[in-house]
Amino acid sequence: MTIEENLKKLRSNYKEISQLSGIMALMGWDQQVYMPKEGVEGRANQMALLGGIIHDKATSEEFGKVIYDLVAEITDLDADDDLAREVKLTKKAYDRETKIPKELVIESSILSAQAHSAWLEAKQTDDYAKFEPFLKKTLDLTLRLVEFFKPYDHPYDVLLDVYEPGMKKVEVQAIFDALRPRQVEILQKIAASEQVDDSMFTKEFPIDGQKRINTFLTRLMGLPTDRTRLDETEHPFTTEFGFDDVRITTHYHTKQVLSALMSTVHEGGHALYQLGMNRDWMETALGQPISLGVHESQSRLWENMVARSHPFWEFVYPLMQMEFPSQLENVSLEQAWRAVNKVQPSFIRTEADEATYNLHIMLRMELEIAMLDGKLDTKDLPEAWNARMRDYLGVVPPTNTLGCLQDVHWSGGMLGYFPTYALGNLISAQWWDKLREDLPNTDEHLRQGKFDEILAWLVKNVHKASSRYDTQDLLQRVTGERLNPDHYIKYLSDKYQKIYNF
Amino acid sequence: MTIEENLKKLRSNYKEISQLSGIMALMGWDQQVYMPKEGVEGRANQMALLGGIIHDKATSEEFGKVIYDLVAEITDLDADDDLAREVKLTKKAYDRETKIPKELVIESSILSAQAHSAWLEAKQTDDYAKFEPFLKKTLDLTLRLVEFFKPYDHPYDVLLDVYEPGMKKVEVQAIFDALRPRQVEILQKIAASEQVDDSMFTKEFPIDGQKRINTFLTRLMGLPTDRTRLDETEHPFTTEFGFDDVRITTHYHTKQVLSALMSTVHEGGHALYQLGMNRDWMETALGQPISLGVHESQSRLWENMVARSHPFWEFVYPLMQMEFPSQLENVSLEQAWRAVNKVQPSFIRTEADEATYNLHIMLRMELEIAMLDGKLDTKDLPEAWNARMRDYLGVVPPTNTLGCLQDVHWSGGMLGYFPTYALGNLISAQWWDKLREDLPNTDEHLRQGKFDEILAWLVKNVHKASSRYDTQDLLQRVTGERLNPDHYIKYLSDKYQKIYNF
Repeated sequence: MTIEENLKKLRSNYKEISQLSGIMALMGWDQQVYMPKEGVEGRANQMALLGGIIHDKATSEEFGKVIYDLVAEITDLDADDDLAREVKLTKKAYDRETKIPKELVIESSILSAQAHSAWLEAKQTDDYAKFEPFLKKTLDLTLRLVEFFKPYDHPYDVLLDVYEPGMKKVEVQAIFDALRPRQVEILQKIAASEQVDDSMFTKEFPIDGQKRINTFLTRLMGLPTDRTRLDETEHPFTTEFGFDDVRITTHYHTKQVLSALMSTVHEGGHALYQLGMNRDWMETALGQPISLGVHESQSRLWENMVARSHPFWEFVYPLMQMEFPSQLENVSLEQAWRAVNKVQPSFIRTEADEATYNLHIMLRMELEIAMLDGKLDTKDLPEAWNARMRDYLGVVPPTNTLGCLQDVHWSGGMLGYFPTYALGNLISAQWWDKLREDLPNTDEHLRQGKFDEILAWLVKNVHKASSRYDTQDLLQRVTGERLNPDHYIKYLSDKYQKIYNF
Repeated sequence: MTIEENLKKLRSNYKEISQLSGIMALMGWDQQVYMPKEGVEGRANQMALLGGIIHDKATSEEFGKVIYDLVAEITDLDADDDLAREVKLTKKAYDRETKIPKELVIESSILSAQAHSAWLEAKQTDDYAKFEPFLKKTLDLTLRLVEFFKPYDHPYDVLLDVYEPGMKKVEVQAIFDALRPRQVEILQKIAASEQVDDSMFTKEFPIDGQKRINTFLTRLMGLPTDRTRLDETEHPFTTEFGFDDVRITTHYHTKQVLSALMSTVHEGGHALYQLGMNRDWMETALGQPISLGVHESQSRLWENMVARSHPFWEFVYPLMQMEFPSQLENVSLEQAWRAVNKVQPSFIRTEADEATYNLHIMLRMELEIAMLDGKLDTKDLPEAWNARMRDYLGVVPPTNTLGCLQDVHWSGGMLGYFPTYALGNLISAQWWDKLREDLPNTDEHLRQGKFDEILAWLVKNVHKASSRYDTQDLLQRVTGERLNPDHYIKYLSDKYQKIYNF
């Protein structure tokens, strides 16, 4: 077959996998948003069946032959060339799906189902011993799976590569090592300052008014009503069923008005990234988000750089006062903005503020590596966790439920996932600095609730690139340098100096 | 292979087809209920892809071999025996999917897409000439398709069998012939009587209050919240994603309070039937609704026999007055009940009352047969339509949009479908008479809004039978006679005598 014929076959198969994955996403979304409770067993069977069909398509010998025929034709897979890149990415995904023997895939999915149940029970009863044997098995299996991806410098590179393609353990460690003391320093300065009061935002805020503000913000951000939806789920998320159907969810709590607002903007940022993929590459390996870190950089940029900024609050606060006059009548803009940015070291990662969030991540990555290296026994995890919490955050969780049992990831075998959250924070600040350099009127636009130029910059520079370049290459092309934590540190210290007067 | 092995294979394949069909239903539901507008193209591609996968499974040679091996082992496929019945039904579905050559299936789906567009445009512009050539092609193709199901007494039998298995044209004609003069007679008596005023139900009824009443009624009917949902769509419908996930929709209009109420109860009746299938036969050919006629008998029973009955209005009317005090303050129960049952010959089938509905159906079936027999040229359809409208209903549609272009069915090649609506009406009255004989306190229960015994009777006698017996056999077993239109006629004349005093 000619290159053209092979390429046509490759794309047709990729497209089918992509369309079936969109169906899978619809089933998952419906399960969380609207499915009646008793539907769960039938849905699980449907998802398993479709999952099998997708797996067969993604690992078929015919697909492999087409890919490897193309690889043989293309002289340099790493060339700066659309076609080479598309084949390289398709091959990479195929290799990942096929390198692991089927028995191990099955073993892994059985283990993660068991580990998930054990984790849930352990977390609910604060009994780490119930989860520990499964964590140990998960580690062992992970190390066996990693073997199929030799050669590597370190097993962690193989894990990280799933979520943050091309990024290496040593690179991330170097970044985190530079970051850690400076984040801790900021935190210490904040601790020594007068604390911020955010009690005004824990009054009763009726859901109706919250819905009006959240919906209005999604429109302002530029989320198109004909390609998106906003629904409600226990845990907010973003999901994609196809190029023109990307949905987000949020969660309203009457006594946590900021929670829904920040969740909506955060998920809105994810959705805008997904909607901004290059349409020419729709349903090909080129037209995908490049990494979880870059994905998170978009949600964080909207949530933190935009929605926690002073100019944005100059715009949004009068709307909130109009909607909630009695709750906010005696609260000044300055008080509100400081409250939105309150720092408070705490036990739970997902509730962490900007000054502490990355420290939660570093702790997890260090522990993951220590366990993979055999330097930390899973039995000793709680002590190691708590020791680091004391060192980095100055607080020690009173229970393992509030400590090493809080996150779901390890029970699903998702080691190497956590760093992408922190990388997303760092990358968001790097985009933001460049964006403000290119668009010097950004503060003024935020004051007017005008987001179109911000979004256009992100689409042009980040979204449209889709998976054409790895994260570091994309950063280099857009900002002129590879990932550099200085941007985030400067952003943090500038902001908190103002709020905490240090 | 042994019978057990073959049966296991047969069931496993049937189950997969059934699960994938549930996924397909989810995609269709989401498209109508929640999908953002621009998602339509991506969704169509996903549905086409999954449709192909389902078709491949439903027509695979391996599946055929398993079925025919079982057929060879079973001495009498028509035996009154679960296994024989299951194999017979599975074989029937397989034959239907495989008898028609693939080219014809494709030709048919292309034609129906074109015919649907042409019909839409013709209907919107009241220009029958735009649709006529496609109707002619649809008829020609239908006659070619029918050939593959020889021998038959009449082509119409083949068409009817898709929707109402086992029912024959001559049987339905005999029923309709007995029915027609008696329905026309009732209608003439009504026309000669004092007419009913229903203007009180066309005032403004806020949607909020309508929602409360509709949701409350679904609970009272026995629709379990953990296995069902009620959403809103342009056209109400019922859909099933799996044994424990059956959803209905309704449509609220501020100025048509009865429309949503009757739609909700109607779809609720469909959903209860679906939810009542025999769980032992889940995802097998035995565990399906037996026919559209029986399906419709359930929705009609709840809508008409229950929700338009006087005792039910004794229960529900105070609730409506409480919810809508100003709209209904000067309206008596008798006035309200009469309004709910108002008869008014009109052009549109879907808006027809109980006294006229079946006449709309008979007209369509007669025209379908005349066209298939070559006795009516598609060019002459409008005249033939209008002549029958005058004869049966005493009204002539001023346009073809309000006449022969009103229904979507023919554009999709669905000839032989219409009779099931009227059969559903007739069957509902036959169940109802037997139910009231078995449960003499039914009127008292309706007065108390107590539906559990009615539902239990339906589940035991109709739902649990699932597809174990053909419609006529099921009627015989439960009511002691085959389909008999006397029940419906008696029901109609009893009711309308009271309302119109004839």
